Amino acid sequence: MAPAVELWFELASTYSYVGAERIVPLARAAGVTIVWRPFLLGPIFAAQQGLKSSPFNANPVRGEYMWRDLERLCARHGLPWRRPSVFPRPSILATRVALVGASHPWGPAFVHATYRANFAEDRDISSREVVADLLARAGAPVDATLAAAESPENKAALRDQTDAAARLGMFGAPNLVVNGELFFGQDRFEDAFAWLERPWLPPAPRT
Amino acid sequence: MAPAVELWFELASTYSYVGAERIVPLARAAGVTIVWRPFLLGPIFAAQQGLKSSPFNANPVRGEYMWRDLERLCARHGLPWRRPSVFPRPSILATRVALVGASHPWGPAFVHATYRANFAEDRDISSREVVADLLARAGAPVDATLAAAESPENKAALRDQTDAAARLGMFGAPNLVVNGELFFGQDRFEDAFAWLERPWLPPAPRT
Repeated sequence: MAPAVELWFELASTYSYVGAERIVPLARAAGVTIVWRPFLLGPIFAAQQGLKSSPFNANPVRGEYMWRDLERLCARHGLPWRRPSVFPRPSILATRVALVGASHPWGPAFVHATYRANFAEDRDISSREVVADLLARAGAPVDATLAAAESPENKAALRDQTDAAARLGMFGAPNLVVNGELFFGQDRFEDAFAWLERPWLPPAPRT
Repeated sequence: MAPAVELWFELASTYSYVGAERIVPLARAAGVTIVWRPFLLGPIFAAQQGLKSSPFNANPVRGEYMWRDLERLCARHGLPWRRPSVFPRPSILATRVALVGASHPWGPAFVHATYRANFAEDRDISSREVVADLLARAGAPVDATLAAAESPENKAALRDQTDAAARLGMFGAPNLVVNGELFFGQDRFEDAFAWLERPWLPPAPRT
């Protein structure tokens, strides 16, 4: 089996957008498979910090820096960027779809299209019409996928995936999990790939 | 005048330790002067988030990740590391001393010695005896420097520097300020040096 990195991402998260773009050439160069793991940060922010929105909204100083940082990062990495007029956008429908997509060839294309819609085109990814359009663009069967996304089984599977993220120690996104080791933030991706090649510490004790 | 980067750092901050070490070879390679700007995060955390301690203590999940991340970062960059038995350590005396040191040749050596004491030797940098020892190790006149550090003028100067950090939009540490552009986190240092060489966006509008 080819070595793999798990990308744990939230479709409402600006830095996850950068991460979902940056991981592709890194994985290709390393000959590594990407396992796409969409999850929801909302329940995690609520449980850990009692927040109902993004921590970037809870601290506006940090929020303002984040917007400038994103503009700079995207320009540096050649990614299209437009500051969204709504942040964070409710991502539950798109994330349910992305979870279905994780076991289909069109999955990554849907993720990339959704991030572009949210953070380069200022489109409302919480809208069913927009999600349907993104599915069509990704080459997925629209109606069947929406039905699968909203099935009780898939809703439960997304809750399970979000619970798993919390158990793995996640508190934000994006994250890479590499042989059980957690790396938070797109700025740690190079370290995570180096770790996959050769870890430089013993595994962390499980707490 | 040689081009310069301003390093805004907090002596109680783990990531500032990594930053204060990593900046030295980066600045040397770029032929750039480092302006050392110690400041206090406590008043900023209190004003922006109502916190009385580190955000890493406020969210223990994020805190646990930080400790593992530090261990990994230090091992990767060849820096000595021991998880301190107290975190964060009150840094006000050492920071007042560092502010005096910012205009003396021994200043950087005191900063490096203080970080090593806090994060590699588990010494209490809030203790006057420890600070005196670190000053001696850095080649500074101990009694005169402590007196200067605790003068009303220097105490006011540190308050001013912390106010300036807040006005520049800081919410954590370390930061680099490069031609007025703010970069937060030691993971943005390479970007900050590239920016000094050639900015890739127009200046941010002042808010």
